[in-house]
Amino acid sequence: MTTPYKRLNKDDAAVLMVDHQAGLLSLVRDIDPDKFKNNVLALADSAKYFGLPTILTTSFEDGPNGPLVPELKELFPEAPYIARPGQINAWDNEDFVAAVKATGKKQLIVAGVVTEVCVAFPVLSAIEEGYDVFVVTDASGTFNPLTRDAAWDRMSAAGAQLMSWFGLACELHRDWRNDIEGLGALFSNHIPDYRNLISSYNATPVTS
Amino acid sequence: MTTPYKRLNKDDAAVLMVDHQAGLLSLVRDIDPDKFKNNVLALADSAKYFGLPTILTTSFEDGPNGPLVPELKELFPEAPYIARPGQINAWDNEDFVAAVKATGKKQLIVAGVVTEVCVAFPVLSAIEEGYDVFVVTDASGTFNPLTRDAAWDRMSAAGAQLMSWFGLACELHRDWRNDIEGLGALFSNHIPDYRNLISSYNATPVTS
Amino acid sequence: MTTPYKRLNKDDAAVLMVDHQAGLLSLVRDIDPDKFKNNVLALADSAKYFGLPTILTTSFEDGPNGPLVPELKELFPEAPYIARPGQINAWDNEDFVAAVKATGKKQLIVAGVVTEVCVAFPVLSAIEEGYDVFVVTDASGTFNPLTRDAAWDRMSAAGAQLMSWFGLACELHRDWRNDIEGLGALFSNHIPDYRNLISSYNATPVTS
Amino acid sequence: MTTPYKRLNKDDAAVLMVDHQAGLLSLVRDIDPDKFKNNVLALADSAKYFGLPTILTTSFEDGPNGPLVPELKELFPEAPYIARPGQINAWDNEDFVAAVKATGKKQLIVAGVVTEVCVAFPVLSAIEEGYDVFVVTDASGTFNPLTRDAAWDRMSAAGAQLMSWFGLACELHRDWRNDIEGLGALFSNHIPDYRNLISSYNATPVTS
Amino acid sequence: MTTPYKRLNKDDAAVLMVDHQAGLLSLVRDIDPDKFKNNVLALADSAKYFGLPTILTTSFEDGPNGPLVPELKELFPEAPYIARPGQINAWDNEDFVAAVKATGKKQLIVAGVVTEVCVAFPVLSAIEEGYDVFVVTDASGTFNPLTRDAAWDRMSAAGAQLMSWFGLACELHRDWRNDIEGLGALFSNHIPDYRNLISSYNATPVTS
Amino acid sequence: MTTPYKRLNKDDAAVLMVDHQAGLLSLVRDIDPDKFKNNVLALADSAKYFGLPTILTTSFEDGPNGPLVPELKELFPEAPYIARPGQINAWDNEDFVAAVKATGKKQLIVAGVVTEVCVAFPVLSAIEEGYDVFVVTDASGTFNPLTRDAAWDRMSAAGAQLMSWFGLACELHRDWRNDIEGLGALFSNHIPDYRNLISSYNATPVTS
Amino acid sequence: MTTPYKRLNKDDAAVLMVDHQAGLLSLVRDIDPDKFKNNVLALADSAKYFGLPTILTTSFEDGPNGPLVPELKELFPEAPYIARPGQINAWDNEDFVAAVKATGKKQLIVAGVVTEVCVAFPVLSAIEEGYDVFVVTDASGTFNPLTRDAAWDRMSAAGAQLMSWFGLACELHRDWRNDIEGLGALFSNHIPDYRNLISSYNATPVTS
Amino acid sequence: MTTPYKRLNKDDAAVLMVDHQAGLLSLVRDIDPDKFKNNVLALADSAKYFGLPTILTTSFEDGPNGPLVPELKELFPEAPYIARPGQINAWDNEDFVAAVKATGKKQLIVAGVVTEVCVAFPVLSAIEEGYDVFVVTDASGTFNPLTRDAAWDRMSAAGAQLMSWFGLACELHRDWRNDIEGLGALFSNHIPDYRNLISSYNATPVTS
Repeated sequence: MTTPYKRLNKDDAAVLMVDHQAGLLSLVRDIDPDKFKNNVLALADSAKYFGLPTILTTSFEDGPNGPLVPELKELFPEAPYIARPGQINAWDNEDFVAAVKATGKKQLIVAGVVTEVCVAFPVLSAIEEGYDVFVVTDASGTFNPLTRDAAWDRMSAAGAQLMSWFGLACELHRDWRNDIEGLGALFSNHIPDYRNLISSYNATPVTS
Repeated sequence: MTTPYKRLNKDDAAVLMVDHQAGLLSLVRDIDPDKFKNNVLALADSAKYFGLPTILTTSFEDGPNGPLVPELKELFPEAPYIARPGQINAWDNEDFVAAVKATGKKQLIVAGVVTEVCVAFPVLSAIEEGYDVFVVTDASGTFNPLTRDAAWDRMSAAGAQLMSWFGLACELHRDWRNDIEGLGALFSNHIPDYRNLISSYNATPVTS
Repeated sequence: MTTPYKRLNKDDAAVLMVDHQAGLLSLVRDIDPDKFKNNVLALADSAKYFGLPTILTTSFEDGPNGPLVPELKELFPEAPYIARPGQINAWDNEDFVAAVKATGKKQLIVAGVVTEVCVAFPVLSAIEEGYDVFVVTDASGTFNPLTRDAAWDRMSAAGAQLMSWFGLACELHRDWRNDIEGLGALFSNHIPDYRNLISSYNATPVTS
Repeated sequence: MTTPYKRLNKDDAAVLMVDHQAGLLSLVRDIDPDKFKNNVLALADSAKYFGLPTILTTSFEDGPNGPLVPELKELFPEAPYIARPGQINAWDNEDFVAAVKATGKKQLIVAGVVTEVCVAFPVLSAIEEGYDVFVVTDASGTFNPLTRDAAWDRMSAAGAQLMSWFGLACELHRDWRNDIEGLGALFSNHIPDYRNLISSYNATPVTS
Repeated sequence: MTTPYKRLNKDDAAVLMVDHQAGLLSLVRDIDPDKFKNNVLALADSAKYFGLPTILTTSFEDGPNGPLVPELKELFPEAPYIARPGQINAWDNEDFVAAVKATGKKQLIVAGVVTEVCVAFPVLSAIEEGYDVFVVTDASGTFNPLTRDAAWDRMSAAGAQLMSWFGLACELHRDWRNDIEGLGALFSNHIPDYRNLISSYNATPVTS
Repeated sequence: MTTPYKRLNKDDAAVLMVDHQAGLLSLVRDIDPDKFKNNVLALADSAKYFGLPTILTTSFEDGPNGPLVPELKELFPEAPYIARPGQINAWDNEDFVAAVKATGKKQLIVAGVVTEVCVAFPVLSAIEEGYDVFVVTDASGTFNPLTRDAAWDRMSAAGAQLMSWFGLACELHRDWRNDIEGLGALFSNHIPDYRNLISSYNATPVTS
Repeated sequence: MTTPYKRLNKDDAAVLMVDHQAGLLSLVRDIDPDKFKNNVLALADSAKYFGLPTILTTSFEDGPNGPLVPELKELFPEAPYIARPGQINAWDNEDFVAAVKATGKKQLIVAGVVTEVCVAFPVLSAIEEGYDVFVVTDASGTFNPLTRDAAWDRMSAAGAQLMSWFGLACELHRDWRNDIEGLGALFSNHIPDYRNLISSYNATPVTS
Repeated sequence: MTTPYKRLNKDDAAVLMVDHQAGLLSLVRDIDPDKFKNNVLALADSAKYFGLPTILTTSFEDGPNGPLVPELKELFPEAPYIARPGQINAWDNEDFVAAVKATGKKQLIVAGVVTEVCVAFPVLSAIEEGYDVFVVTDASGTFNPLTRDAAWDRMSAAGAQLMSWFGLACELHRDWRNDIEGLGALFSNHIPDYRNLISSYNATPVTS
């Protein structure tokens, strides 16, 4: 009766980055800004590292919502970029859905700002159309824990899988032996504690 | 097996404001009073803005529970107003149910004080009668996070959708192009960070 | 597919107070002790007020777990009192189950210390035997929020309804007109904010 | 050896509102935005109500820091308004100091964004020049509680008095009989709980 | 250079209970209401137990601020009771100061609502007149931790001693042998954990 | 429709300790390190006490992840110890799965670091293969509450039971009479409050 | 004008452990019990390690306050042990003061339960008599952060130095070269993160 | 009687970075690791930007404490680097003190790990020798808020000024006109909210 294990597979997955815009980010107050910036970039670097097709979309970027954060543009210069003219739910935009379908993937990884709107709406729409959807909770932000918890509940009840960017990277990588240095670099760049472990490990003198 | 996407539609929805009374509000301690007042008025302004039929109800307003907060009365002078003579669950009051049915809507948006009683009871009753019910969690308040979490769990398990007022407004609006200024004004009046974005945007001098 | 509205009914309900013992209470750290003491007594007073059959049980009360808190003994001098010789899950004690069955009720209201053991175990057992079970979350306590959240999740997944004592009292009472003074006194004795509302209301001089 | 009671007196006090700008406000994360907006406007309304000379100043308002929040401009259309061309410490700006001196007041009430810079710097400078300085802590904001606590410690050690806007209003008013309705309106507009007390009080029917 | 040990002495101390009124209590949000009610009554019971002269005062008790909480009236039926006609700082009321002077005590214990006004103002005034002042911090309440911290800083900088009701009771009692049962009863009535210790202690069976 | 009561039984259960390594532990920030160390050792001592087959596994222990914490090695010198060469999900390692199957148990108790990876992945895999899985939430740790909550939601939705080590020990023990001293010692060693209860109980002098 | 650097010196310091009794510990709720137990033992081990004269004292240990925690008795079998017959302030007990004076030390390190009484009272008394006093804040506990903060403020204002046990150990040790293994063992036993650093360091294989 | 305004001046100030080592950083739990890493690098970049003489020092970097974090080494390749052979208080190391004196500066800016030891000890020693000392509180870390608060109290009582890195940068810069781009870049690199303001500002299209 419960959900079977839907496991992320790098050949089956695409990433949707929804509305990480300079203005909208000032609304995010359920995660500290230093941590949130790091999480978003960690997800983006993960998408890049695993070679996942990635789609960028924004809402009204010429108005107060502001431009997409420059780092995302730079990381994905070739990615489909859908500047939506008005649809709040990205799934209501035909170009966006077409871009998703063009990836041919059935596992959708979604993050965005704010959680209960820019994330939840396309998540619910995609589930309805039969996709397996994975929400990157720590690369998605909103006004406060109360609105976050309500949004998580709505998405989880609909069958979305709640993940962290770290869980996502580990599930995609499967085995350290596939590339120790690459995964280590990803973690070192985005997890200060892990970077310190590596620094200490590398610095340890010969002990015998 | 999971809940399909029940999407709010402004032609199908009605709003129930339950027991936002001056006395009962002193019981609300799971949300800061400045924020809570703002959220309740934001929901009310949203109902007004989208032209949703709205029903007001109170419990024992001549006693310690106190009168309905004046702003709600003023916003909805024509709304059905059911001062319940004693029923704690508004759905036990025939006039209230009649007013709900008279709207002809199948999507009910509910907020009130306190969450585990004035909200949860009619929510559970309405679900039982086949309505799709959306709880505006941040315009509903109660004694503390513990009682709130229990109430959310009970309602969610019964199939209620947990929303924020902002998520609700966005889901109802669908597309900014339906009315950019109207939605912008709603957000500017109730989200200080959004107001600041607009102020900065409008103040930016010609840069070329 | 979701849980139907199981509504507490004072003719169908019994209360189980499990292991509120002086020693075990020192383990409770997920609720402030002043608030917890009040919540437990509020539940007890509610059980008394609504005339619900109530069963008391303790675990090893002659050892470090300590005696049942004296107030509960005094409130329910005639109640079945099962001092379990060793069973941790009260439902493993035949006398306890017999006492429950003797009430003839199908709705069981459970509170106790600590939540993931003394509450969760009989709750899960009772659900398995077909009872409708209501957990009074704020009259149950445990080591910290982490262990509480895990316990709530386990019970909720099994179909238990999570309640507060206030929600329980309101659902049982149904209509203020059944006894305004009685319910008002119950609230005044256990909700300082409500008591203040009454004090202010009663003190207000004639204004015309 | 300790600080004597420096008591605010409405004939001796002036208010300095420092850098409450639309852009800078997005940096404030030690107070919830709904509450912070309310506190700033409450201080402004208090200044207005008590007729205190008020000075507005901004830093680089044509750049990313953004314009002064419009409400403050509207409340004090005649106030000295010093748009500083670059000085971070407002006290380094001769026009600002001149405006302060022109008030002829010896008690300076200061609030601003962010606390450890725009507030602390002029506070420390003014104390050095012999002023009695009162910091309105809840109408001043900064990055997080850690930077706030450090800033408070530095200002308090230098002899600044830490106040809330409510404490300030009460100390200035001295006696309700000076104007019951005026002070009541100030509180009703900025303290939801107080507004509710008034609503309940006014609504109470004749009881004899 | 530092403050010498000012030690409370039951022959030298008087207690001032300032504005614990049913309406004003709804403003107190820096302490949970169950705990706050308990702390205020614990202070009152301590004053009674040690036979300290106690003075009650209220502000505008016929208006929204509401009546003094009934328990305090009942505990101190003979105490000077100054219903101030309008002075916000109780020390501005001649009758209040006269009542304080009439006690002939030099150590003043102060608690009230709200901390930065009803407590801080008379505290600062009394220090200025040479009294040793002890603030019962946990029987005083205000809007939130931010305004509390600012108020504590202001009072502490002026030389007030910050106490808890428990610290106060212990400093006054000096030696358990002066009355074991009396002090034990005071603690048992107001500290659930202590009550449980006593219950367990008394219930322990003969072990040899 | 809800999960039936899956009850831990000491004859049916095995314990999997996944990646409690000295380096990885520096990543755990959702539980205080003193408490977390205690919880992990409490789980290990419980496994030992109930004689449950226990399997240890590590990931890359020669690199920055560091060695298994020495206490676990010492407690289970004979346990299967699978130092995985690279698989992140322990269930992807054939030796690990073989070791699990060799126990012949159908109830798997899992704890590890970090929760959303080293715990969640084998939990989901084991459920898929038909095991009943019990997660020891307080002996599992991760980066912060946000990533923990997402991981719990994913596991709970898949049918895992969320437990504390204390709940687990109590459910396995069933009846104090099976061994009072043994269980008492387990609790005394890992629950300071319980140890104090025992100390006080034992120290209580003959009272008659 | 400020306090000069009073630096702990192992030849000048004595340790006072005040009322760490099994019953009283149930009152401590401002620190998690696992952490608090560790901190108290870490202070005790530090006292032992540095060979500081240590004095134990208890209040009413035959009553509900309970016996001294057994670990302290075992660590200091030869230490002066003053079971006070009733004095709440240990400094009021002549034997205790005599024991302090007999150490011949001028730096007193104090920890105890509860902070505002058993710690603060002898701290204030000792300062008055000219001792330099160091409070081990994290080996002292009380009801909640509010009462702790008030107690810290009172002691700090009187000139006490607020320390952690770790700061104390480091200030006493001065130089790692005095005994690397000894200090390392002390830290490894009481700081899980430090133990992990050592485990990882020792386990690191030869890297060249 | 209070501290005069000691104002940072870039010609008078030097920066001491004490023990930011890869191993010790795992002990820091009073600040989130993403934020802490950012704060330390922000302080380092500020020191670089303002051309302040900077001194690096470490404790036992060949042991478990680990190496200095690589970024600091890279930023200050020419800085005095004192790898202390054992002294815990850096001021006990003659080379360190000589390096400080060689700067010829009288204002010392100090940050390090952990706050109550590596920061507090040299801070107290430097004050004793007549330096003006500024603690960068948010680039210093320790075990938990409790030990941090005690350390801050000790340093503040001795006359240290508590700062944030942002306050420090602003006080050193004095006037935006000294270098708008440079300061803007510093903020953009270390304050995500500020970077977003700049992104939005730059992206705003011509509006007329």
